[in-house]
Amino acid sequence: MARVLYELCGIDEGLRFSPYCWRVRYALAHKGLAVETRPWHFTDKAALAFANHDKVPVLVDGDAVVVESYEILRYLDRTYPEAPLLGDGLAEARARFFKAYAERALAPAMLRTIIMDLLNAIHPKDRDYFRESREKRFGRTLEEFHSPAKGLAQLDAALEPLRGCLKEADFIDGAAPAAADYLLFGNFMWARCVSSADLVSNADPVYAWLERMLDCHDGLGRSALRVTDIEGAYR
Amino acid sequence: MARVLYELCGIDEGLRFSPYCWRVRYALAHKGLAVETRPWHFTDKAALAFANHDKVPVLVDGDAVVVESYEILRYLDRTYPEAPLLGDGLAEARARFFKAYAERALAPAMLRTIIMDLLNAIHPKDRDYFRESREKRFGRTLEEFHSPAKGLAQLDAALEPLRGCLKEADFIDGAAPAAADYLLFGNFMWARCVSSADLVSNADPVYAWLERMLDCHDGLGRSALRVTDIEGAYR
Repeated sequence: MARVLYELCGIDEGLRFSPYCWRVRYALAHKGLAVETRPWHFTDKAALAFANHDKVPVLVDGDAVVVESYEILRYLDRTYPEAPLLGDGLAEARARFFKAYAERALAPAMLRTIIMDLLNAIHPKDRDYFRESREKRFGRTLEEFHSPAKGLAQLDAALEPLRGCLKEADFIDGAAPAAADYLLFGNFMWARCVSSADLVSNADPVYAWLERMLDCHDGLGRSALRVTDIEGAYR
Repeated sequence: MARVLYELCGIDEGLRFSPYCWRVRYALAHKGLAVETRPWHFTDKAALAFANHDKVPVLVDGDAVVVESYEILRYLDRTYPEAPLLGDGLAEARARFFKAYAERALAPAMLRTIIMDLLNAIHPKDRDYFRESREKRFGRTLEEFHSPAKGLAQLDAALEPLRGCLKEADFIDGAAPAAADYLLFGNFMWARCVSSADLVSNADPVYAWLERMLDCHDGLGRSALRVTDIEGAYR
């Protein structure tokens, strides 16, 4: 029975950088579930018609088709209850906060820092779509939005609670990572795959957590292709 | 059997503003446990000698003496397991993040906004101690540290994940509040009791959450004495 994950790819089919897809890759690894991944481009809308959706991740698991990363995590917990990701009760309620923290605090700060690198890592056929949709969202050009100085200062402030949390345990979710870690770490994989920017200094407790996250599940994140690995791709 | 909570008080014995004490008051109400509170001043170190501690909250529960707000929450969950506060497993691990978020993101932003009000609300005999200890911590005078413009901007940014989280449920912990809500709300009670500053606009989803938090447990927060209720105390 096939388990297939549609994932955003960039200038190279092996360059997978979507933060939402990375959440799912880590969640599948957490459950010990094998998956075949299929590269997808922003403009391949027709390829997802079967799911009535126009964005990745899309998970096909036997007869089930599940869209949206957070819904996929819920689906995995429901279908494969061993090794909870979101958990239930108070744990599940609290997990929603980490989703919002990743998307509303970390992602915007990172995006200001890496957006030109991101544009460069995207497949050429997707770049017009990307520029147009993002410029509409930001109300200005990508070049105007781009500001590593502001982005890094914003990120530094946003990471302060994470630093405190990591003083007492190796992962947000305790001695081992689970959904709270994956929800945040997806953003760091996104930046890592498309950019060589140092988002966090190596003296920061967040850096040590990132290293642990890169190593877990047999080095899933560390072995991912980065744009800097592709000859001539990083400018 | 007596249950006693030592709480910081201000210019009036009824003015209780410590964010850490408010966490505990809400936690006790959550468990349905009655408590007798005793006012304490920053400089009453001798009054806590029995606990080998020099700060409040201190909870005396029969033979148990428990210090530090987070430890008191743990103690309450252990001793009165009904209606979990922190919960266990992933829930408990995630609760630590909210503690760090309250103390490292919300509190510093609020403090820059309300510090002169806070000084004014503190008992006159405690003010030298407060000024000296805080100026040492900040490396500058209270007056130099005081900056509502910076504090409110910082708070606005820090609240962004909370806004997202509250889009899907009335409380951080779901349909009813628990420790994640109390850990954060303690800071808002602190500001509310000593200041009339509007920290959050009434169009903000956080405002609606604050209103719900003030109402819960029979209006525990809403009925608390504020410095503005004390004739001649608010300047």
